[in-house]
Amino acid sequence: MARTVVSSAKKSVVIGFDQPFCIIGERINPTGRKKLAAEMAAGDFSTVEKDALAQVEAGAHMLDVNAGIPLADEPAILAKTVQLVQSLTDVPLSIDSSIVAALEAGLSVYKGKALVNSVTGETERLEQVLPLVKKYGAAVVAISNDETGISEDPDVRYAVAKKIVEHAADYGIPKEDVVVDPLVMPIGALGGAGKQAFSIVRRLREELGVNTTCGASNISFGLPNRHWMNGVFLAMAAGFGMTSAILNPLHSEEMAALRACDVLLEKDAHCAKWIKVYREPAPEGAVDARAERGERRRRRGAA
Amino acid sequence: MARTVVSSAKKSVVIGFDQPFCIIGERINPTGRKKLAAEMAAGDFSTVEKDALAQVEAGAHMLDVNAGIPLADEPAILAKTVQLVQSLTDVPLSIDSSIVAALEAGLSVYKGKALVNSVTGETERLEQVLPLVKKYGAAVVAISNDETGISEDPDVRYAVAKKIVEHAADYGIPKEDVVVDPLVMPIGALGGAGKQAFSIVRRLREELGVNTTCGASNISFGLPNRHWMNGVFLAMAAGFGMTSAILNPLHSEEMAALRACDVLLEKDAHCAKWIKVYREPAPEGAVDARAERGERRRRRGAA
Repeated sequence: MARTVVSSAKKSVVIGFDQPFCIIGERINPTGRKKLAAEMAAGDFSTVEKDALAQVEAGAHMLDVNAGIPLADEPAILAKTVQLVQSLTDVPLSIDSSIVAALEAGLSVYKGKALVNSVTGETERLEQVLPLVKKYGAAVVAISNDETGISEDPDVRYAVAKKIVEHAADYGIPKEDVVVDPLVMPIGALGGAGKQAFSIVRRLREELGVNTTCGASNISFGLPNRHWMNGVFLAMAAGFGMTSAILNPLHSEEMAALRACDVLLEKDAHCAKWIKVYREPAPEGAVDARAERGERRRRRGAA
Repeated sequence: MARTVVSSAKKSVVIGFDQPFCIIGERINPTGRKKLAAEMAAGDFSTVEKDALAQVEAGAHMLDVNAGIPLADEPAILAKTVQLVQSLTDVPLSIDSSIVAALEAGLSVYKGKALVNSVTGETERLEQVLPLVKKYGAAVVAISNDETGISEDPDVRYAVAKKIVEHAADYGIPKEDVVVDPLVMPIGALGGAGKQAFSIVRRLREELGVNTTCGASNISFGLPNRHWMNGVFLAMAAGFGMTSAILNPLHSEEMAALRACDVLLEKDAHCAKWIKVYREPAPEGAVDARAERGERRRRRGAA
C-alpha cells in the first residue's frame, strides 16, 4: 500500500489509500494572476503570505508554491517564496516549476521532505529532475505525458506513468515517492474524460500501487457551475483510488465534496471533522446557556 | 447488461448501466407528513398534484406513490392517487406500500409497467408480492433484508438480494425486472456504511448483473449538511454502479451531484443538460443583442 510521506521541519503528511484525501493548495502561483506576478517580481510577498495562511486555515494539508513569472529570476524568487511560506506555516510544500534550476533553488532551501512538481515522461526531463529528487530525498509528481504529447488513449497514459515509476526506481527513488498525475482532460471537449480518468486511477492504484493527484479544475474547463463539477469529479475519483489533488481550498464546493468523501470512505472517524465544519447553528431565538452567562458577566463587569 | 424498462401509457424509462441515473421522486408519501396524510385521508389531493408536477419539473424520471396513512383505506387511496398522478404526468410510477392489498389496488388501475416498491427476502413477502409483480407484468424493488432483520454483514445482504432474484426467476420474473436496494445505513452510526454500500453495489452490478436503488437520505441521518452528504454519496455510488435512487428532486445539492455524475460517466452527451441547467446568466449590464432588438420592436409596436 503506497504511503507517500512528505514533511516540513515540524510536520509530516502522509498521502495514502488509508489516509484522508490530501488537499494541496494551488493559490501561490502567479500564472494567470498578473497582480500577484508583479508583486512577487517586485519583492512584495504580502499576497503570498495571505494566500498561505488562508489556504491552511481553509483545510489545505500541503501548499503548492510556484514562482513562474516571465523574465524574472525564477530560481531566486521561488527560493525566497519557499522560505517565506515555511516561516509562516508547518504544512509541507510542493515545489512547482518547469525550470530545473528553480526546482533546485527551492529544494536547496527547503526544510523537510518536499514534493517536487513535476517530472514528465520526456527523457530529458527524467534525466534532469529525477537526480534532483534523489539528491534532496524528495517525492515527485509524475505527469503522464512524454515526447509524443498527451495521449488521448488511457492505456498510453498508464504506460507513460509506469515508465516514469520504473525510471525513478533506477535512480533509487521508491514508487512510494512517485505520485502520478494521470492528466485529466476537459470533459466539455472530451466526453469520456471522466470515465477515462477513473479507469486510469483505478489501474494506477490496483496494478501499479501508486498514489495519484491531479489539477482538479481541468475537468470542468469551459463549463458553467465549475466548482460543483470539480467537487463531484474529485469525490468520484477518490472512490476509484485517487489520493490527492491540487486545488483552491477556498472554494466551498470542492471542499464539501472532499469532506463528504472522507466520511464515506471511513477516513473521518465518527464524522468528527464533518460535524465540526458543518454543525448547524442553534435555531434563531435559542439560548446558548454558556454564552448568556458570559454576556451577563460582561454586563456586570461593565456596570 | 441489466435494462429495467418501466412505463406509463405514453412513456418508457430505462434504468440501466448505460443510462442517466434514474431519479425517483419521493415526495408523494404521507409518512412523516401529517398535513398531507390528513388531506389524503379527507380526499383532498391538491398537495399530491403540486408535488407530482413540481418533482417532474425538477427532473424526476419516475415518481414514487405511497398512501400509508394509519387507519385509512390505503388500497382505495393508493389507487386513487395512482390514477390522479397518471392523469397529470407521463412519468412511470413506483407503487409503494407495505400492504399487499394496496399494491394490488394500485397495480390494477395502473396504465403501463409499474415498479412495485417493494419486496423483501422474507418468505411470506416473497410469496405474496412476487405473484402480483408477475400478474401485472411489473418490475420490483428488492430490499435485502429477511426474517433475520437487516444484517450489518454486507455479504449477508448480498446473499439476501441474490435469493430474491432467484425467487423472482422461479415466478417467471427476469432479473432485469428486479432492482435491488442494498439498504444503506446511517454513516453517523456505522462508519463503514459508505464503503459497505459501494462494495455491495459493485458486486450487485458485476456478479449479479442487476440494477440498484436506495433511499438516498439514509446515509446522512443525524448529520448536519445532509444534502451535500447525500449528493456526494449518490455520485460515488453511481461510480460503483448504482443506477437509481429514491430522493427529493427539489433539493438542488443531490440534483447537482447527480447531474455532474451523469456528465462524468458520459451519460449527458456534450454536457447538454448540465449546460442547460447551469448556464451562467449574462454579466450585469451586458446587452443581449437579440433581446434588445426584440425590446425595440415591442416599443415601436406600442408607439
